[in-house]
Amino acid sequence: MGNAAAVMTGLNSIEIQERPTPDPAPGQAVIRVEAVGVCGSDVAYYRYGKIGPFVVDGPFILGHEVAGEVVAVGEGVENVRIGDRVAVEPGTPDRSCEECRAGRYHLCPNLEFLATPPYDGALLQYLAMDARCYFPIPDSMSYEDGALIEPLSVGLWGCQRANLQAGDDVLITGVGPVGLLAAEAARALGAGSVTLTDISDYRLGIAADHGFMVEKSDASTSRTFDVLLECSGANGVLASALGRLHEAGRAAVIGIAKTEEVPLPLSILNWKEITISMVNRYNNTWPLGIALVSSGRINLEGLVTHSFSLPQTAGLSH
Amino acid sequence: MGNAAAVMTGLNSIEIQERPTPDPAPGQAVIRVEAVGVCGSDVAYYRYGKIGPFVVDGPFILGHEVAGEVVAVGEGVENVRIGDRVAVEPGTPDRSCEECRAGRYHLCPNLEFLATPPYDGALLQYLAMDARCYFPIPDSMSYEDGALIEPLSVGLWGCQRANLQAGDDVLITGVGPVGLLAAEAARALGAGSVTLTDISDYRLGIAADHGFMVEKSDASTSRTFDVLLECSGANGVLASALGRLHEAGRAAVIGIAKTEEVPLPLSILNWKEITISMVNRYNNTWPLGIALVSSGRINLEGLVTHSFSLPQTAGLSH
Amino acid sequence: MGNAAAVMTGLNSIEIQERPTPDPAPGQAVIRVEAVGVCGSDVAYYRYGKIGPFVVDGPFILGHEVAGEVVAVGEGVENVRIGDRVAVEPGTPDRSCEECRAGRYHLCPNLEFLATPPYDGALLQYLAMDARCYFPIPDSMSYEDGALIEPLSVGLWGCQRANLQAGDDVLITGVGPVGLLAAEAARALGAGSVTLTDISDYRLGIAADHGFMVEKSDASTSRTFDVLLECSGANGVLASALGRLHEAGRAAVIGIAKTEEVPLPLSILNWKEITISMVNRYNNTWPLGIALVSSGRINLEGLVTHSFSLPQTAGLSH
Amino acid sequence: MGNAAAVMTGLNSIEIQERPTPDPAPGQAVIRVEAVGVCGSDVAYYRYGKIGPFVVDGPFILGHEVAGEVVAVGEGVENVRIGDRVAVEPGTPDRSCEECRAGRYHLCPNLEFLATPPYDGALLQYLAMDARCYFPIPDSMSYEDGALIEPLSVGLWGCQRANLQAGDDVLITGVGPVGLLAAEAARALGAGSVTLTDISDYRLGIAADHGFMVEKSDASTSRTFDVLLECSGANGVLASALGRLHEAGRAAVIGIAKTEEVPLPLSILNWKEITISMVNRYNNTWPLGIALVSSGRINLEGLVTHSFSLPQTAGLSH
Repeated sequence: MGNAAAVMTGLNSIEIQERPTPDPAPGQAVIRVEAVGVCGSDVAYYRYGKIGPFVVDGPFILGHEVAGEVVAVGEGVENVRIGDRVAVEPGTPDRSCEECRAGRYHLCPNLEFLATPPYDGALLQYLAMDARCYFPIPDSMSYEDGALIEPLSVGLWGCQRANLQAGDDVLITGVGPVGLLAAEAARALGAGSVTLTDISDYRLGIAADHGFMVEKSDASTSRTFDVLLECSGANGVLASALGRLHEAGRAAVIGIAKTEEVPLPLSILNWKEITISMVNRYNNTWPLGIALVSSGRINLEGLVTHSFSLPQTAGLSH
Repeated sequence: MGNAAAVMTGLNSIEIQERPTPDPAPGQAVIRVEAVGVCGSDVAYYRYGKIGPFVVDGPFILGHEVAGEVVAVGEGVENVRIGDRVAVEPGTPDRSCEECRAGRYHLCPNLEFLATPPYDGALLQYLAMDARCYFPIPDSMSYEDGALIEPLSVGLWGCQRANLQAGDDVLITGVGPVGLLAAEAARALGAGSVTLTDISDYRLGIAADHGFMVEKSDASTSRTFDVLLECSGANGVLASALGRLHEAGRAAVIGIAKTEEVPLPLSILNWKEITISMVNRYNNTWPLGIALVSSGRINLEGLVTHSFSLPQTAGLSH
Repeated sequence: MGNAAAVMTGLNSIEIQERPTPDPAPGQAVIRVEAVGVCGSDVAYYRYGKIGPFVVDGPFILGHEVAGEVVAVGEGVENVRIGDRVAVEPGTPDRSCEECRAGRYHLCPNLEFLATPPYDGALLQYLAMDARCYFPIPDSMSYEDGALIEPLSVGLWGCQRANLQAGDDVLITGVGPVGLLAAEAARALGAGSVTLTDISDYRLGIAADHGFMVEKSDASTSRTFDVLLECSGANGVLASALGRLHEAGRAAVIGIAKTEEVPLPLSILNWKEITISMVNRYNNTWPLGIALVSSGRINLEGLVTHSFSLPQTAGLSH
Repeated sequence: MGNAAAVMTGLNSIEIQERPTPDPAPGQAVIRVEAVGVCGSDVAYYRYGKIGPFVVDGPFILGHEVAGEVVAVGEGVENVRIGDRVAVEPGTPDRSCEECRAGRYHLCPNLEFLATPPYDGALLQYLAMDARCYFPIPDSMSYEDGALIEPLSVGLWGCQRANLQAGDDVLITGVGPVGLLAAEAARALGAGSVTLTDISDYRLGIAADHGFMVEKSDASTSRTFDVLLECSGANGVLASALGRLHEAGRAAVIGIAKTEEVPLPLSILNWKEITISMVNRYNNTWPLGIALVSSGRINLEGLVTHSFSLPQTAGLSH
């Protein structure tokens, strides 16, 4: 079998190249990639060649929202078998460091993450990874939904970092894919209400179509919330949204502001005893995400808007 | 206005008597009682005159699942107004003791609880209580549903005591009203799956009608669970159900076994590091319960099977 | 008995005036005040007449770090008796609102707090308060130590808000009384190490005398910490100290920056998944504080540097 | 270098035999064993050949409380270097299963645990293990103390399972090594008071020498506690000790009762809303244990009563 890959060869440039077909090392398994989502970070690498300290340096393969079918397993692999349909957690921690041993593997300083320089991503036919990154999905779940477990995981972990409790009134700022999936996560975790804000009426319409409450970003309302999930990363959004939390409110910062420093009105937040939790991806969310989607508690329909074959990938930039 | 009360005058005997119409003391409010549920404990007092150390001694009014309309408020009351429709939390703690100050008011040693000797219950026309026991319900919620917030609270608190997390597979033993409401609570809190067991096919049918998975008590299955909510109180059920928890499983004991001592296989439970949490009613669950019911996340339809007027109460024992 | 009070009659001006001797209302008790600490907020009111939105408007009594002896109890009081020596929690919540019922009484919007306009403080001979604010102290504990339970509580609650775990390496910025007491709290709660920073060598010397590790604020070191307790309120200290937390680090913001907005490097903190918790006083810390001090686990010796009689209070401003 | 091992060749029989000197596989490191504690489980295997389902079948090496010096490291090992003095966590999980990925590696169904059939222990000169089981200890810590981190870990984890909070009054039943170390752990974690009970005056004397409060098991006292750590495993002790917890009390069951079923008075425990947590060894306690001992917060002096050389081991049974 060949292994065609969509390789980013420069800014705004992708070519189809052949890569060696991988054999699974001990502990690894190889999947035939069936679906890869395109994340904002993929677009950023493609257009600008870097995200903060991560710089694309030479040929690079994008894609870290992945699902596929297991076609080969290495020595000692027990959690998946050939033929399993799997969703892929894109980070491989060293499982040795202090963070890993404390159960916080997502903060492992040696984490190897798909499509994050210097590690290639999954826009190719066959991918070999530590088999522990693979989570079987039921036949009833599409590969597209399997790939969406990754951005859904961001939302699930954000809810957990915000210590979201059933009944909480939740405010989500920013109706991108992450914001929408965070809203789905919050609803599935028992939120009493979920309200999304954005500056775009079009995006708010999409959120409303998913059954959420919506508010224009500049609307002047006085309603307060238990939990804030900041998903926009836009300047000033966090600071003003924090003001809408009531006493003991909890915020999770999912959208990463590009600005170096974010000015926050701490002296006001102090009175209400607000908690602000940064969010760095996710920890052990695949089992939960798969359970919620396969049981129908989260409906991902309508979130995939366009699909392309691997060869088409190269043509997309033209 | 008169104040007719359904007074238990002896075992299996209820008479309608006039009681003084209450004026609200400072901090109190008076409601016109609109709905009162009948709990298993009411039946036990009615038939046997006691539950454990609580002995009915003289005329006694049953009923602690209550909703009504506020008709008078005392000095200093701010949380409700005349005309508010409210669900009633039936326990009034002293708000002074160590437990109250630690936020565990439900364990207050001086708790005055409706229909628990020596405190009368709510089967009468007008009831005066500490206004802090009243929680407004929206117009869209019926008084019957308002009264059901009480047994629902038992389920909600049981889920919280079991530290139920979204995605958990939940086993509930016993399909009485408490078991069913615990199942509704677990589903609303994001349970991955909810399975109820009982010895009665009829009861299992009701649970299935509510959309839950069901299993005959004596079915031999090997499926394991994250969380157990024991709601039967029947001998031996807890011990065998604990065996169906997998590693790090958490059990909440809601049903109170009548036997003095319950034999548990601790040496087996040790390996899996099971946690067993006793449940004594609830703590601060009315806001959550009202939010879940009024938003439609919990559907109480079909849980009220019969309704009676107050005068009919007296005739029911004949 | 008379009731002499040290009344602030204007900026930098205190006079001794007679106030009515209080009778305890139902639920209240009266203490003879035996010790009152002087907090930074007292000094701020005395010098500037306001702290944020709280403005002194007319004669005002300072002092909220208080201990005394119970001399009269009102109707229904059960937790203290005449003759009890007590430490005083200075806030009286309404015990009715949503926050109070959720166990977060310290965030009660109707909190009446000693020496916070419009509520007078305790620099007088006899004080009447809700008896639930009084916590008996053993005979072995001095009234001075009893009064210090208040600022110690700030440190204890800060540790709890930071979710301090035994073994954590703790960084405390700012060696004022609050910083020192937070350090004592952290040590008593099992911190693996406690390091204080300040710009003043003199203050660092005091911290070192109490057995803590110290560092000059501008020292360039790379040691990282699990927990940060920001106690300085100085500009820029929080932002730079947050950079010294390692992965999953937790910060509690105790010192309130005077500036309107504090710029924080969130994009960096995101990678480490830092949690920032604001701190507004304390919740239910008196039992713990009294237990830790009376058992000798916290030694308050040396923290009281000067003592004055009530009449001397008036002369201090000259 | 040779590799002499103390091999249990039958009940009550140990011989010194030569074993192959191990080379470290990738990810492993080899230590020269410097100290091995003797645990009650070692004694049980030695005398009876089994513990529950674990049966000694053929030659078997005892010992799982271990410290030593790293003498060889395999490929890819980063957390230890040759010459490091290390304490050894005796369990190697598969780091792949659901439990491992959820951070509960101690409940891994494939855990390979030293001196638990079919896995040999550490009573030999050179031991090869997954390097992630080794935790460097400072030069100031003796190898004996390093080996004691294992039983101390049981106490630390028991405290964590009981959700021990600073200020808690703690009752520990059973003054064996585990009980004493649990007491040290509780004190280091900020317990307000620590009381041990036993039937033996001699053992109580040892506990008192360590500065703890003591009570004869059959003493009739009414003092109640926040936390119970059951360390005796004796019949009936758990049931009666649970009765001494006050409201919201938390028990950790560390001592494993040999009886098949333990009768517990649940209907009484229900009122107080007691929580009972089983304890299976420990999870990620070495960093904390080493920090507490090396900082002097836990003093292990006097806990090692006898020391023997490896050759002496064989003679001990005579």
